[in-house]
Amino acid sequence: MRLTIFSPSGVVPDGLALQRALARLHELGFDARRDRAALARRQRFAGSDEERLAAIHRVADDAPDVAMSTRGGYGLTRLLDAIAWKKLGRSVERGTRWVGLSDFTALQLGLLAHTGAGSWAGPCATEGFGRTEAAGGVDDVTAACFAEAMRGELEAVGFRTDKGFDGLEVRGTLWGSNLAMLCSLLGTPHLPAVRGGVLFLEDVNEHPYRIERMLLQLLQAGVLGAQKAVVLGQFDAWTPSPLDRGYGLKAMVAHLRSKTRVPILTGLPFGHIPTKVTLPVGRRVTLAVQGQQAFIGWA
Amino acid sequence: MRLTIFSPSGVVPDGLALQRALARLHELGFDARRDRAALARRQRFAGSDEERLAAIHRVADDAPDVAMSTRGGYGLTRLLDAIAWKKLGRSVERGTRWVGLSDFTALQLGLLAHTGAGSWAGPCATEGFGRTEAAGGVDDVTAACFAEAMRGELEAVGFRTDKGFDGLEVRGTLWGSNLAMLCSLLGTPHLPAVRGGVLFLEDVNEHPYRIERMLLQLLQAGVLGAQKAVVLGQFDAWTPSPLDRGYGLKAMVAHLRSKTRVPILTGLPFGHIPTKVTLPVGRRVTLAVQGQQAFIGWA
Repeated sequence: MRLTIFSPSGVVPDGLALQRALARLHELGFDARRDRAALARRQRFAGSDEERLAAIHRVADDAPDVAMSTRGGYGLTRLLDAIAWKKLGRSVERGTRWVGLSDFTALQLGLLAHTGAGSWAGPCATEGFGRTEAAGGVDDVTAACFAEAMRGELEAVGFRTDKGFDGLEVRGTLWGSNLAMLCSLLGTPHLPAVRGGVLFLEDVNEHPYRIERMLLQLLQAGVLGAQKAVVLGQFDAWTPSPLDRGYGLKAMVAHLRSKTRVPILTGLPFGHIPTKVTLPVGRRVTLAVQGQQAFIGWA
Repeated sequence: MRLTIFSPSGVVPDGLALQRALARLHELGFDARRDRAALARRQRFAGSDEERLAAIHRVADDAPDVAMSTRGGYGLTRLLDAIAWKKLGRSVERGTRWVGLSDFTALQLGLLAHTGAGSWAGPCATEGFGRTEAAGGVDDVTAACFAEAMRGELEAVGFRTDKGFDGLEVRGTLWGSNLAMLCSLLGTPHLPAVRGGVLFLEDVNEHPYRIERMLLQLLQAGVLGAQKAVVLGQFDAWTPSPLDRGYGLKAMVAHLRSKTRVPILTGLPFGHIPTKVTLPVGRRVTLAVQGQQAFIGWA
């Protein structure tokens, strides 16, 4: 499978990480190469807006089997009004699986909104496959899940959720994943109008009160209430405040559950963490729970 | 003038700061008292949602001349769907000037959206009037501007802006002020549909790339382009990243200006800073620039 790594968002500070990612993706069986502008630099971005936009379009025209983002950061917001969405949609028809997370959510949801085409929430190149062995190397579960998903062999993922959802079974469009990026599309033409969906969310470096504020915005905007289920992934690397006085992620989830009848599950292994699944954004899935064991399947 | 200090948002960690604020507001000529739940505590909030909602409604029913928030933090988002907006609107008709900033933006914009009633962007009690002398005490300009505004004597504020706006003169509804809070209302019923307005914005602890992401969301949502001018206040207390490589507030403003013809002024002395003006949200104003001297007037 041909896999192209490209940079639509933040600057790649360490070219060696990209080299390691290419080598490891080769080991996983991919014919991996990098787009020629993958290491471009302009301020905090991986090249100027024009360079990054051209890279996206170049990859779409080339239509590799897998189009993987080098990393997140910030940058896609600047490009949303200029991306040739139909070009990207055609690449998906030709078989390209666009994959990434974090800032990449903007591209994935814009693609879904403008063309209905699906993509994959999964590891970025430098963070998922580029770490030194001393920094943790490649996570075996992440790599295996990603490779199976790209080969079309992955049909479901399982995780342990909270008590209280035994017997739940819903079907709908799976979408997500980064909460801040999804909220940054509210009110714009780049947010897909998914109703009856399964919305999965994660974020990093955000205090639970900020997570809650974003989730309440989705609730007040009618987005949460229109879903069949919400599945929370990992919300990591936030700094507690002395003012919290017992308020944290658990209190946040409890508050949210008190405000909506939509089931809000937790425990999805997805987010800014080493061990994560790869999931199809825009695909119709079944979410089912037995006891505390949850499954998201798209077979 | 009767002035009531109340707590719609975050917990007040220091009751002495509130005592100092009351004393200093007395010195400024206000008959200042605190709402009975101003020091309530529940996790990171100034009391439970029910307590804070009751406090807002109690103040509205009492209709003092000035209703001032103790502090920002987080909390109003939880109450937006439950606030009796007409009750607040009636208090404004009876002469109440609601004043605050930061989290308070949600109440101010909700009030404008649901009733058309105006309010005041200005100091909160503990941060504006409650600091110890060692921590800076009360800022003279802030206090004088606030007192004049509350007495109806303030008719304009002036500030020095960037070059390039000499001769600009526009009229429209003034609105703002906290960027994150304003963006948290996008897509919800609590955002006023102000067209042809003068939008002023500030924030704190947000990296310029996050400021930019929010401003681009407003642009992509059609909000920025519908304004006659945008006036940026202070964006402070952000932490530079080694990845910025020359990207900062100036680069952010330059990028934004390249994307819209709406004049984007800077330099408004408003935000999470000691010296700030008090401004009428929802009032029709004139924004005029001579050289680099800008005026916002509502006489």
